[in-house]
Amino acid sequence: MTERIAFLGIGLMGAPMARNLLQAGFPLAAWNRDSVKAAALKSAGAVSAATPADASRDADIVITMLANGPAVEAVMFGDQGAVTTLRPDALVIDMSSSPPAMARDHAKRLAGRGYLDAPVSGGTIGAAEARLAIMAGGDPASFARAKRLFAALGHATLVGPIGSGQLAKLANQAIVAITIGAVAEALLLAAAGGADPAAVREAIMGGFAESRVLKVHGKRMILRDFTPGGPADHQVKDCETIVATAKASGLTLPFAEQALAMFRGLVAHGGARLDHSALLLELERMNGKKLGPGPETLPA
Amino acid sequence: MTERIAFLGIGLMGAPMARNLLQAGFPLAAWNRDSVKAAALKSAGAVSAATPADASRDADIVITMLANGPAVEAVMFGDQGAVTTLRPDALVIDMSSSPPAMARDHAKRLAGRGYLDAPVSGGTIGAAEARLAIMAGGDPASFARAKRLFAALGHATLVGPIGSGQLAKLANQAIVAITIGAVAEALLLAAAGGADPAAVREAIMGGFAESRVLKVHGKRMILRDFTPGGPADHQVKDCETIVATAKASGLTLPFAEQALAMFRGLVAHGGARLDHSALLLELERMNGKKLGPGPETLPA
Repeated sequence: MTERIAFLGIGLMGAPMARNLLQAGFPLAAWNRDSVKAAALKSAGAVSAATPADASRDADIVITMLANGPAVEAVMFGDQGAVTTLRPDALVIDMSSSPPAMARDHAKRLAGRGYLDAPVSGGTIGAAEARLAIMAGGDPASFARAKRLFAALGHATLVGPIGSGQLAKLANQAIVAITIGAVAEALLLAAAGGADPAAVREAIMGGFAESRVLKVHGKRMILRDFTPGGPADHQVKDCETIVATAKASGLTLPFAEQALAMFRGLVAHGGARLDHSALLLELERMNGKKLGPGPETLPA
Repeated sequence: MTERIAFLGIGLMGAPMARNLLQAGFPLAAWNRDSVKAAALKSAGAVSAATPADASRDADIVITMLANGPAVEAVMFGDQGAVTTLRPDALVIDMSSSPPAMARDHAKRLAGRGYLDAPVSGGTIGAAEARLAIMAGGDPASFARAKRLFAALGHATLVGPIGSGQLAKLANQAIVAITIGAVAEALLLAAAGGADPAAVREAIMGGFAESRVLKVHGKRMILRDFTPGGPADHQVKDCETIVATAKASGLTLPFAEQALAMFRGLVAHGGARLDHSALLLELERMNGKKLGPGPETLPA
C-alpha cells in the first residue's frame, strides 16, 4: 500500500521534495502558509489543503519542512494544527532543522503516534536532484516505514533515538561553520605572506586539507562572491543551537563557541544576508587586511 | 639533459622520494646523517655521499628533505654544508616543512643560485606512490626547471614567490588542525545527546561537512585508534609556526590560536606521541565525557 502523505511547508526545500514524492507515486496533500505555493503543486498531482489540519486528516504520514522550530510547533500544535486531525496510527516526520529537545518534546506530545526527526543536508540542489543526506532519529520500525519515502528524496541514515537526527544536523552545521573559519584563516595567512590564495587552494585540494567547504566556500572567498547559499544569520542561529545543546549536555565546545562569536560579528557588521563564507569578511575586518582585491568589505 | 641530483635527508619521506627519482632516471647522490639509510639506496643506483658538501659538488639540483628548519639550516650552511661546494648554476629545492621566513633567508644567502621552497602533503604513502601534493614557491623559471623532477614525485603547483610553498603548507596544516577540532566537537556533541557517533559520521559524510579529516581522523576517533600518523607534538610545532607567521604578517587568527592551545593541552596531558586526531581525548578530558567506550583516555 502506498501511504498518503501530508506535506506541510512548500518552500524552497519543500517544493522540490514534494514534487519528488509525487513523482514516486505517493498521493500528497500540500499545505503552505502562502497558499499560492501549495497550489502550484496541483499540476504535479497534489491536493492543495487550506490548513495543516485539513492536509493531515487522511494522511498516513505527515511531513513538516519549515523554517525553524517555532514554525513546526505552530503548524503541529497551533490553531488548525495537524495534531487536531492526526490519526492514531499516523507517522509524523519533521524534516525541518529544529532543536533536538523540541524533537523529544513533540514526540511525547504525539502520544504514541510514530515520530521521526529527519533533517536534511544538501540544499535546494540536493532537494531537486533527490540527493539529500537525511539524518533520522527514532525507532527502527518507524524508520523502516519511511524507507521508501526517504529513497525518493535522497539517502537516509538512522543515527539513533528521537532527537538524534537533529543532533546529527547540528554536528554537520558545527563542522561546516568551523571549517569555513579554518579555510578563511588559512587563505588569509597565505595571502598576507605573499602567496597567491587561488593557487594555494588548488595546491592543497589534493591533500589532507581537502573538504567540500574548501572546494565550494574557498572558491567563493577567492572570487569574493557571497551570494547565498546559506546566509550568515541562519548560521548564527545554528551556532546558537549548537552551543545551547552542548551546554544542556554539560559540554563546552571551544571551536563552536569561536564560530558563534565570529558569525555574530559578521552579522553585527552588516553581513546578515551574505553567504556564510563571508566569515572571511569579518576576519578581514578584524585584521584590517584583505585576501584579494574586490569591492566586498564590511564597514570598518 | 638529465640533471644530477643531490638528495639530502633519506628518512621516512626522503627514501621513497629518492627511489622514485632514481626510477625516473635521475643520477642521484644521497646523503643522510645516519649513513646506513643513504647506503641502502645504492642497490637502486644511488651514489652514497659522506657529507652534504660531497653530495652537492657535482649536483645540478640539491634537494633537502629534513625534519625541520634548523636541520635544513645545518645541512645547507653548517660545517661540511652543501653551500661550500654548491655550483653557481645549481638549483636548491627545500622540500622540508620549515618557516616561510627561513625560505626567504636561505634564498638570499644562496647569492643568486636558484631556489624553490617546495614542501609536500600526502605522507609516506603519498611519497611511496608518487602522489605527493607539492606546494612550490619561487620564480617560474626555477619551477619550470624542476617540473620533470616534481612529476616523478607527485603533483606540483607554483603558488607564488619564494616562501609561498611554506605558506601553503602552513595553510594546509591550519585547516587540518582546526578541522580535527571541528570533527571532535561535532561527534562529541552528537554522542552526548544520545546519537550514535559512528552512524552520525556516516550520515554527514555525504553532505557539506564532508572532508578527508572527517573520513580518516573521524574514523580514528570512532575506533579510538590513535596510532600516528601525524603525532600531536608535530602538530603543536606546526600550530606555533602558523601563529608566529600570522603575527609577523600582523594577523590574529582565532581558530588557529584555539587549535594551538588545545594541541598544547593534549601534549601537556601525555598525548605527545599519539596521532593528532587524539585531540578528541583532550576535548573529552576538558569535558569529563567520552565519545564512546574504550580504554584510551588522558590522565584526569
